[in-house]
Amino acid sequence: MKSYTLGEIAKLLDVQLIGDDQVVINGLGTLRDAAPQQLSFLSNPAYIDQLSSCKASAVIIAENFSDICPTNKLISSAPYVSFAKASALFDRAPSPVSGIHPTAIVDNSAKLAKGVSVAANSVIGADVCIGENSEIGSGVTIGAGSALGKNCKLHSSVTLYHKVSLGSNVIIHSGSIVGADGFGFSFDGEKSIKIHQLGSVRIADNVEIGAGTTIDRGAIGDTVIGLGVKIDNQVQIGHNCIIGDHTIICGCTAIAGSVKIGRYCIMGGASGAVGHISIADKVQVSAMSLVSSSITEAGMYSSGTGHMKTSIWKRLIVRFQQLDSIAKRLKELEKPTDKE
Amino acid sequence: MKSYTLGEIAKLLDVQLIGDDQVVINGLGTLRDAAPQQLSFLSNPAYIDQLSSCKASAVIIAENFSDICPTNKLISSAPYVSFAKASALFDRAPSPVSGIHPTAIVDNSAKLAKGVSVAANSVIGADVCIGENSEIGSGVTIGAGSALGKNCKLHSSVTLYHKVSLGSNVIIHSGSIVGADGFGFSFDGEKSIKIHQLGSVRIADNVEIGAGTTIDRGAIGDTVIGLGVKIDNQVQIGHNCIIGDHTIICGCTAIAGSVKIGRYCIMGGASGAVGHISIADKVQVSAMSLVSSSITEAGMYSSGTGHMKTSIWKRLIVRFQQLDSIAKRLKELEKPTDKE
Amino acid sequence: MKSYTLGEIAKLLDVQLIGDDQVVINGLGTLRDAAPQQLSFLSNPAYIDQLSSCKASAVIIAENFSDICPTNKLISSAPYVSFAKASALFDRAPSPVSGIHPTAIVDNSAKLAKGVSVAANSVIGADVCIGENSEIGSGVTIGAGSALGKNCKLHSSVTLYHKVSLGSNVIIHSGSIVGADGFGFSFDGEKSIKIHQLGSVRIADNVEIGAGTTIDRGAIGDTVIGLGVKIDNQVQIGHNCIIGDHTIICGCTAIAGSVKIGRYCIMGGASGAVGHISIADKVQVSAMSLVSSSITEAGMYSSGTGHMKTSIWKRLIVRFQQLDSIAKRLKELEKPTDKE
Repeated sequence: MKSYTLGEIAKLLDVQLIGDDQVVINGLGTLRDAAPQQLSFLSNPAYIDQLSSCKASAVIIAENFSDICPTNKLISSAPYVSFAKASALFDRAPSPVSGIHPTAIVDNSAKLAKGVSVAANSVIGADVCIGENSEIGSGVTIGAGSALGKNCKLHSSVTLYHKVSLGSNVIIHSGSIVGADGFGFSFDGEKSIKIHQLGSVRIADNVEIGAGTTIDRGAIGDTVIGLGVKIDNQVQIGHNCIIGDHTIICGCTAIAGSVKIGRYCIMGGASGAVGHISIADKVQVSAMSLVSSSITEAGMYSSGTGHMKTSIWKRLIVRFQQLDSIAKRLKELEKPTDKE
Repeated sequence: MKSYTLGEIAKLLDVQLIGDDQVVINGLGTLRDAAPQQLSFLSNPAYIDQLSSCKASAVIIAENFSDICPTNKLISSAPYVSFAKASALFDRAPSPVSGIHPTAIVDNSAKLAKGVSVAANSVIGADVCIGENSEIGSGVTIGAGSALGKNCKLHSSVTLYHKVSLGSNVIIHSGSIVGADGFGFSFDGEKSIKIHQLGSVRIADNVEIGAGTTIDRGAIGDTVIGLGVKIDNQVQIGHNCIIGDHTIICGCTAIAGSVKIGRYCIMGGASGAVGHISIADKVQVSAMSLVSSSITEAGMYSSGTGHMKTSIWKRLIVRFQQLDSIAKRLKELEKPTDKE
Repeated sequence: MKSYTLGEIAKLLDVQLIGDDQVVINGLGTLRDAAPQQLSFLSNPAYIDQLSSCKASAVIIAENFSDICPTNKLISSAPYVSFAKASALFDRAPSPVSGIHPTAIVDNSAKLAKGVSVAANSVIGADVCIGENSEIGSGVTIGAGSALGKNCKLHSSVTLYHKVSLGSNVIIHSGSIVGADGFGFSFDGEKSIKIHQLGSVRIADNVEIGAGTTIDRGAIGDTVIGLGVKIDNQVQIGHNCIIGDHTIICGCTAIAGSVKIGRYCIMGGASGAVGHISIADKVQVSAMSLVSSSITEAGMYSSGTGHMKTSIWKRLIVRFQQLDSIAKRLKELEKPTDKE
């Protein structure tokens, strides 16, 4: 188990320590559940009541709340950011085995920079380039001509098709597939004829992609994922989408083809966007909402009805189907009567 | 093809046979489609009319309907349960090859109990423990420190990250991923900073997980899947969820992080739950419904509008957007007029 | 880079060339973005204004628009179909390595026809038959007794369970799983008992299946995918579904068990269908719409509310919950008053 003195942690997080710098910290905990020798944090003031009974040996906290913290404290102007940095200190995920596993199949023409590791049974195609210190998990397939930057991490069973390009510090979790054919067909009156997908996928630096996500290659041009974009599990991104820098896409979101999403957007879980639309910067879409036309203004958007007891809902959806009639009848009633 | 006499089946299912115990049964069929020498069942009384023309050589049936069954019958107090047991008799899925395939890569520190099989190209990490008679399919990755109970079955291309724990009799279908990082980031005003996910996933006995499902590891504590939970394909379960015993989660459901679902719930297909909410025991959520706040009472819940012709729907969603105005205008009309 | 003279392309597409047959074409481009030496197309008249400034060296175009095309033209009665055919000419996806890779594990009883290629680390089970010129990517698992027709292409990490059957010219993208157990359980009052899934999956000729899609095997009979069906990424098709010929299923669609979908349907992205219903031929379901009962008539169907600003939406869903009351109060107002 990794451990640090509180003094070491203060230094690593670059925050001010008020308290005992020799206390040993061996993990993290929430205010409610932390045990002694753990480090906690207060970010959301809603949890301020939990401070008094918190058993953590230290708390990351903003200066204005520090007086009421009963234990050692690390003063941070952004406690949740400092907590994120602290989480890296205690990550016990196993380190990759260094080098190329004997069962990995690396094409002779592939270029692997210094410090690259390739785990068992991975298959690296022709002319692939992998930047320094990138880690390739087991059972990964990287198609011919793909290029990865430095410090990338592809977990087990990731598939990159041919000619996909990743920047540096890109993380892709297991089972995700980048560069499969976009869904393009031409209908000849009888059957669908495949439109071969000639573009590819370009992913910028610092992108993280969850497990089981699919990002299709472009039909003619490329599908593009911007700088620092974070994509959760089981997200689908269609061909020729352009996702703006620092946008966050939560799990199970479905983005159809040729959608342009702005910078600093948040697509809520299981949300969706129909094809060929644009979404402005700083748009937030709530969970399971469908964006069915372009959004040109920052802000929060939703669709749906909210949940309710099914017995009530069944009456309401009947009423929903009467809405046009209701509106017309209301208008009728509003007309001045002859008497008036 | 496996076959049994009806007498053998009655014994194996522990039900009473009325009829010929020497009839040979070689498969199962529905009342409508069964062929001679097949076994059928009547569970839902809606299908009772199909009994008279059923060609099956025997029918599993409740005692109160047995008089009208024209063929051999197996009397069961729970015909659908007896049918489930019968289905196991006729399963012709290939048996695993015994032992460790020569291409499997098993870390020296891993402990495999008696009767464990590991198929081709699987990778078993350091300190993994696998209980008796568990079967590991081809191309499976099991991360360091993970533990599996007895009689588990991991189909091809399952990925368990490090330190994941499974109880006994757990089935996981192909492509499912347990223990990938939860989706946690802290925003520093410019970019998202990864919160390392330090918890893991604990899965209890008798859980079945479909294909292409993802269950994320916890941020600090663990994600927990209760006893006998059944999870269908392409379900996403976020970090730190707690799923109560015997709950059923249908395909493509999206559960955000830190959701607590009770016991004996049913989440309908493609349903969802937003983060940090609780759902009581015995709640049923209908297909594609979003649970957007905690549910404290057992019962059925729904959201959405039901489908209709798009031409009608287009008018109705315009009216939906007028609903606030409609309600206000109605209230206005309801005011007593000067005349009254 | 592949290139052709325009004369060669006209011949390959079987269309009339008006212009210079010696122009060299080395790729495709949209009217807006094409560079010189690229071939473009006009299919949707909405883009007609882009013709005048188009830099492509040739345009596929219908005869009635050919006069206004300022460059070389290929006259087609179906420009988008001709474009699809042209896309095949410029596909630069790497060719499969021929033959069986030394790390592939092919059961002795498997029958591989002439021209079959099997890439690294794939596992081909007992009694599998693979037709002429089919390509099996790396890390593919094909279960015992499965059969593939001619010219199939299974990309990396596809899993076919046992006894699955594919026709000819079937393409399956990475991570898709065909033949996992359908989601069937019988509840005995305390726990769920597995109903073993004894059927399989039959997929007809010319089907294409995207990445990360799951198609479950049938409970008793088979799940059936018809001729020329095109299925996008992350689609879930439950046990015993029957999908009619030439139907298109867009990404992230969830089809529950025992659904019968007609011919020439289009299921929009992230749409869904509840179990045990039928959908007629030529039905189109819009994105994220749920089909909650059978549809007997061709046409377009939708559900949902459309998106709007969350601030407005919050008021409207309150009003939605008042709809029954609104309708009743309206009816009350419509009653003739005593005065009349």
